[in-house]
Amino acid sequence: MSVSTVPRTIEWLGGLDGCVRLIDQTRLPAELVMLECRDVRTMWDAIKRLSVRGAPAIGIAAAMGAVLGVRDYEGDDRAGFLKRLEEVCEYLASSRPTAVNLRWALERIRRRAQSVPGHDTAAIQRALLEEAKRIRDEDEAMCRAIGRFGEPLIRPAAGVLTHCNAGGLATACFGTALAPLYTAHERGRSFRVYVGETRPLLQGARLTAWELQKAGIDVTLLCDSMGGSLMKSGRVELVITGADRIVANGDVANKIGTYGVAVLAKAHGIPFYVAAPSSTFDLSTPDGSRIPIEERNPDEIRRGFGVPTAPPDVNCYCPAFDVTPAELVRGIITERGIVQPVAASRIAAILRP
Amino acid sequence: MSVSTVPRTIEWLGGLDGCVRLIDQTRLPAELVMLECRDVRTMWDAIKRLSVRGAPAIGIAAAMGAVLGVRDYEGDDRAGFLKRLEEVCEYLASSRPTAVNLRWALERIRRRAQSVPGHDTAAIQRALLEEAKRIRDEDEAMCRAIGRFGEPLIRPAAGVLTHCNAGGLATACFGTALAPLYTAHERGRSFRVYVGETRPLLQGARLTAWELQKAGIDVTLLCDSMGGSLMKSGRVELVITGADRIVANGDVANKIGTYGVAVLAKAHGIPFYVAAPSSTFDLSTPDGSRIPIEERNPDEIRRGFGVPTAPPDVNCYCPAFDVTPAELVRGIITERGIVQPVAASRIAAILRP
Repeated sequence: MSVSTVPRTIEWLGGLDGCVRLIDQTRLPAELVMLECRDVRTMWDAIKRLSVRGAPAIGIAAAMGAVLGVRDYEGDDRAGFLKRLEEVCEYLASSRPTAVNLRWALERIRRRAQSVPGHDTAAIQRALLEEAKRIRDEDEAMCRAIGRFGEPLIRPAAGVLTHCNAGGLATACFGTALAPLYTAHERGRSFRVYVGETRPLLQGARLTAWELQKAGIDVTLLCDSMGGSLMKSGRVELVITGADRIVANGDVANKIGTYGVAVLAKAHGIPFYVAAPSSTFDLSTPDGSRIPIEERNPDEIRRGFGVPTAPPDVNCYCPAFDVTPAELVRGIITERGIVQPVAASRIAAILRP
Repeated sequence: MSVSTVPRTIEWLGGLDGCVRLIDQTRLPAELVMLECRDVRTMWDAIKRLSVRGAPAIGIAAAMGAVLGVRDYEGDDRAGFLKRLEEVCEYLASSRPTAVNLRWALERIRRRAQSVPGHDTAAIQRALLEEAKRIRDEDEAMCRAIGRFGEPLIRPAAGVLTHCNAGGLATACFGTALAPLYTAHERGRSFRVYVGETRPLLQGARLTAWELQKAGIDVTLLCDSMGGSLMKSGRVELVITGADRIVANGDVANKIGTYGVAVLAKAHGIPFYVAAPSSTFDLSTPDGSRIPIEERNPDEIRRGFGVPTAPPDVNCYCPAFDVTPAELVRGIITERGIVQPVAASRIAAILRP
């Protein structure tokens, strides 16, 4: 299967009377099931249950969900329509309370509604659908730009290690960390991708291995503990991961385990890159020590995969993220170019409008 | 529960008409089930199914299993008895064909039989039972000696990280990597042990966390990918792991993931120790590059815990062991003392009879 024949993570089918079709990621990798959302409640549920996950994909889902929630509104009561939209947006925002992209996308939908003058609510509905599709298209364009900038890093026959899922399943298409790989693959280059399984929730095993395999890319899965041995064997010449947040000095918060991979990469002289859109930067936070780290439910470790794998009441250390200091990051691949070396001044420069 | 009230991993109960009682490790950590072996077939099965595992414990099990296999032999036919013993030993050796300690223990039993003169097979049977118990007692003494030498490394309130299970469950009692911890605990010291879960087979989560918790030691479990973040947080001041093989220059083969932990420890200035009996040294191999690394069944990664966690046919990298170079090892704790610094000459000196 080529990149283009992998189903899209999320898309709107048809016109205003159409529906949202998305990959139900809770069913991966066992089976590929497409979920069709025709009302806002189904979409809320899909976001809540992680059928759709990854910050950009959640934003797209929320925007499309808002359209589903107001498309049946009839009549020419502009105030009533906007009130209904407000309720729908609040409802959707409650599905994942801490997701930044979700709120950002809903705010864009609200503003678009306000920008359409008059009482023709059908016209507002059409404008909102266009806006939701635009959010999706912009995300795809962003991923493709990251892919173009990062693609020259992938040398023929290279071994590239990644962690977690910063792939097409987290975005409209192509992903961030995986975008350079998809782009190199489209251009006919051969290489091998190594994927850490990413305990506790196994996004690497369940999602990244699945989507790369579906795209016809040579992929090899390993347990997170095997990365050091793999690097020592000489099979890895490049590491690329995504990022959850990049702060002003270039420190990177990402899925737990990223920091360990970065330390190991440095010990083996392997360049470690991060790929992320400019929206991931948070210049209001000076350095990584100020990033709060969420602790997850210990049962993600103690009862991985639904079966008890540890004493049921044992204490656990279960941070969701870790922070990789800027000095371990060779470059940050954004849709505007590569920040390299990683320094506050370079980051500020690339983010300037 | 104090150290002394944790059931013994394996022991012989009663006299020649008694039985072997062992912890069925396949049932841990969900439940503590004791298995009683009264014939050699049950013991063969217990070894094969990994009810008993860990090199020293397997050796003890094999020696006791040999006794079970010949204790019913009646009459004064010395040659017939020795022939029967030979068959029993060959049968037991087939349970885990590559286990070095198993063969070593069976060889000791054979030699002991040959050393008893005369045709009184009951006397030979009694001598073999004594020999099997002696193998167990020597193992316990070895573990306790490692514990005494390593115990001063455990400072009050220290955080100590370990990987896999080199504990009491792998030996007669106390283990190797865990022996200094049990000894410090017996002496009333308080500290915290961090345990990596040790994918793919989760010996850290299933066994080490269980036995430390049962002994009343403060234990915290983490995924293998979380070690870097934990070290960076300042909570670890010492790492101790076991070893599968230590070669002439001090390079250490141990459970996959050990090397990554050693690199991270060095990056954080944390001393990394290995604990192992002198029988683990292999001076015929000059350095770690000559150690063959077994590749395990990829389904240990793809179907961890009995459920599919990855695409069913995805390629996997699944080495059983990795090699930690001597320069990353601060010291090797043996039953004869600590080898420190780790150098070929020091190793040769401590192994001299």
